[in-house]
Amino acid sequence: MAKFLTNREENYSQWYNDLVIKADLAESSAVRGCMIIKPYGYAIWEKIQAELDRLFKATGHVNAYFPLFIPKSFLSKEAAHVEGFAKECAVVTHYRLKNDENGKGIIVDPTAKLEEELIIRPTSETIIWHSYKNWIQSYRDLTILINQWANVVRWEMRTRLFLRTTEFLWQEGHTAHATREEAVEEAEKMINVYAGFAENSMALPVIKGSKSESERFAGAIDTFAIEALMQDGKALQAGTSHFLGQNFAKAFDVQFTDKTGKLDYVWATSWGVSTRLMGALIMAHSDNNGLVLPPKLAPIQVVIIPIYRNVDQLAGMSGKVMKIKSDLEAVGISVKYDDRDNNKPGFKFADYELKGVPVRLAIGPRDLENNTIEIARRDTLTKETIPTDNLTAHIQALLIDIQENIYKKAHDFRKENTFYVNKWDEFLRILDDKGGFIMAHWDGTAETEEKIKEETKATIRCIPFDSPDEDGVCVYSGKPSKRRVLFARSY
Amino acid sequence: MAKFLTNREENYSQWYNDLVIKADLAESSAVRGCMIIKPYGYAIWEKIQAELDRLFKATGHVNAYFPLFIPKSFLSKEAAHVEGFAKECAVVTHYRLKNDENGKGIIVDPTAKLEEELIIRPTSETIIWHSYKNWIQSYRDLTILINQWANVVRWEMRTRLFLRTTEFLWQEGHTAHATREEAVEEAEKMINVYAGFAENSMALPVIKGSKSESERFAGAIDTFAIEALMQDGKALQAGTSHFLGQNFAKAFDVQFTDKTGKLDYVWATSWGVSTRLMGALIMAHSDNNGLVLPPKLAPIQVVIIPIYRNVDQLAGMSGKVMKIKSDLEAVGISVKYDDRDNNKPGFKFADYELKGVPVRLAIGPRDLENNTIEIARRDTLTKETIPTDNLTAHIQALLIDIQENIYKKAHDFRKENTFYVNKWDEFLRILDDKGGFIMAHWDGTAETEEKIKEETKATIRCIPFDSPDEDGVCVYSGKPSKRRVLFARSY
Repeated sequence: MAKFLTNREENYSQWYNDLVIKADLAESSAVRGCMIIKPYGYAIWEKIQAELDRLFKATGHVNAYFPLFIPKSFLSKEAAHVEGFAKECAVVTHYRLKNDENGKGIIVDPTAKLEEELIIRPTSETIIWHSYKNWIQSYRDLTILINQWANVVRWEMRTRLFLRTTEFLWQEGHTAHATREEAVEEAEKMINVYAGFAENSMALPVIKGSKSESERFAGAIDTFAIEALMQDGKALQAGTSHFLGQNFAKAFDVQFTDKTGKLDYVWATSWGVSTRLMGALIMAHSDNNGLVLPPKLAPIQVVIIPIYRNVDQLAGMSGKVMKIKSDLEAVGISVKYDDRDNNKPGFKFADYELKGVPVRLAIGPRDLENNTIEIARRDTLTKETIPTDNLTAHIQALLIDIQENIYKKAHDFRKENTFYVNKWDEFLRILDDKGGFIMAHWDGTAETEEKIKEETKATIRCIPFDSPDEDGVCVYSGKPSKRRVLFARSY
Repeated sequence: MAKFLTNREENYSQWYNDLVIKADLAESSAVRGCMIIKPYGYAIWEKIQAELDRLFKATGHVNAYFPLFIPKSFLSKEAAHVEGFAKECAVVTHYRLKNDENGKGIIVDPTAKLEEELIIRPTSETIIWHSYKNWIQSYRDLTILINQWANVVRWEMRTRLFLRTTEFLWQEGHTAHATREEAVEEAEKMINVYAGFAENSMALPVIKGSKSESERFAGAIDTFAIEALMQDGKALQAGTSHFLGQNFAKAFDVQFTDKTGKLDYVWATSWGVSTRLMGALIMAHSDNNGLVLPPKLAPIQVVIIPIYRNVDQLAGMSGKVMKIKSDLEAVGISVKYDDRDNNKPGFKFADYELKGVPVRLAIGPRDLENNTIEIARRDTLTKETIPTDNLTAHIQALLIDIQENIYKKAHDFRKENTFYVNKWDEFLRILDDKGGFIMAHWDGTAETEEKIKEETKATIRCIPFDSPDEDGVCVYSGKPSKRRVLFARSY
């Protein structure tokens, strides 16, 4: 059958868009920059949510919900914060529509103008810290470890499905602490939670590190990030965790009495990941046949497709198939039996490849006689015919193997595409050639960082936590440097 | 210790507000009419969500996500729909803030005005049916059974925590069908799912029925509802399911080719429940000591409180308590061991009563010697000392008994407060006396319904599905009637 997708090697960007649409993950809506997450895409997001939520709760966090709206004046209270978000805020100015008296249909009622405009939250630090002021008086009211699952809006000019949309879904943690040390520890803990999730569940190797000052979150003292490498050699920031110091506590006057009776401002963190993770998941592993999903996040882990010539043959197999299905489900594997009569097996094979289902089983009359089944894995596109004895155990092991293999493939790719660069011309050549991660020395100044960005569009993705001390000279300015940082072009 | 709450019998409304605040369920925010759902309240909502989501999936539904924003013009396409929602719409008119040139801080950038205003969704029929137009061409594209978990905004003038807030959380199902019969069946199925959830999980008896024409959802052909009776004699609508006919398909031109090749408009339903359920749950069961939670929705089902004079005594008990806790957790019971040292047992007892924890265990040194434990149930406020042998089985049975008892109490209350009324003066007397459900004949006209509402504030809550055929005369007009309908004052 015809290929569904633009060739990945020809036009990566178009391949990605094709894949998101054709695999039925998401589509653009009638509202500029806002996406519709379709059921299959949302089912993957639900699996991401469930596992992250479990990890947050296992580390002592609880969920809550704060308003969608933020009074305009709140946003102004933290100077860097408003500077960072003012240019992309959706603003609610009225609260009523009415029929136009001149018969021009429905219009905004000019008499229903808000005294103070409301901003749709681009992030919730301000509304949450306004609340924390009422919640926190003493050290006994600390620590607060709250997470929120919510939609947020940032009016982006250039949008792409999942990667950058005006409205997106995310979680945002907002914690309050009595000491600087505890807040820093929390911010580090959460970037580790994100990294663990990316590597274990998404099969996505990530580099953990600190952002340079110019790349920090608006209002943060320190921003930690996880950075992943996509197949086109560009980096994707997959999650961030911020040590906010006392900035928001000061902006909203949140003080507490410590054990000695002394007043101090509260220390804060915030951290978030979003539906952008879906973009990372799709981009990192998929191929020209479609999506490749790690088994841990696949809504359907195993699909069973019957091969038959007539209804009697189909009926003859159903007992055996139902037994296989229920055995697999009994050990927690999600299975779909696709016995739809309106599509040929070949169409179904291609469709489940497109959708990234990790394991495909095909069974025909001869298999039934021989007690065999054809088993195909999505990640390698290989297949074999095996006996159905011990099938459940075989598939359990196979799913683990596929998860590991997908990770290994991404890890190998990153290794092959990470370059330790010492010379500027080499830096330029690699970026223009095939991209990738560039580990290079940097003199630590915002000026150099900005010039590199202007000349190459590459940015400092992070200063990796595990980048060793090493004397060297800045790849751009030649000035001394103590360690390498991670450069790349990015999404 | 002092009572936390206003007396329920003195001021029911204040009692409810006190309870929501003191039990740490929710509070008002800085934004008019918007609430903050606090962690304990949100934990209950998560349990509600999880069970409803399970029920939706078990009936074949899948989740998806559609944009927060609705273009103003979409709302106008279904005449009754816009009429119903225009007066309570939050409107986004701009997409950027900027620094005021006159130094007056941050202002809305007048150059960033949207060409077409965006409405924050009050409900999503319009944006979803605009999408369905692209998804549906043939009968093969049907049935669509989609649900969405989302926030919505309706600009309410008078708000109350959980019961009526400007922003609220909900789920909204939006289904598309090839035939009228199938859509009606779906709308009925979902009101039954809601009723089953209310009765089984919330321990809340409900009356299922159809709304009168004037109480229907804006755009529906038929609205089904579940109605519950609160302790102050007022009704609360706890969920609705709408048969939308072809209204939205016609408004958005969604046609499909049926099996015979004929074009027809698609049939629709929508159905939803919201954080309002939290209000129903709180109001239906709680008392002057605080919240009473049915075990199935209690975030903490069992709390264990140690009684001790010194740290050694506490340490001596911890082995035994940990064993009890892990035994209970092993059978899926959620347990909290509160060994905080800064509060006395009496304070803790009152606090967990306030929070509605179904079962409280207290253990002291003498219990340890005697192999006993004190067990108290929240619903009846009774306690007894029992041997710790078979404690897990005892508590499992007790939780079931508490769930049933809470339901029975609410059911008995409703029975005692449901009145079959035939005379207008009796109708008035019951409403002014203590309220309740009034089953009375109605002549079927909107005029009579409106007059009754004007004179008494009572409305037709629903025409119960199980209301038998019975000749009678309208309690207000004296005109003939074929069956009784359910009247009440309501939230």
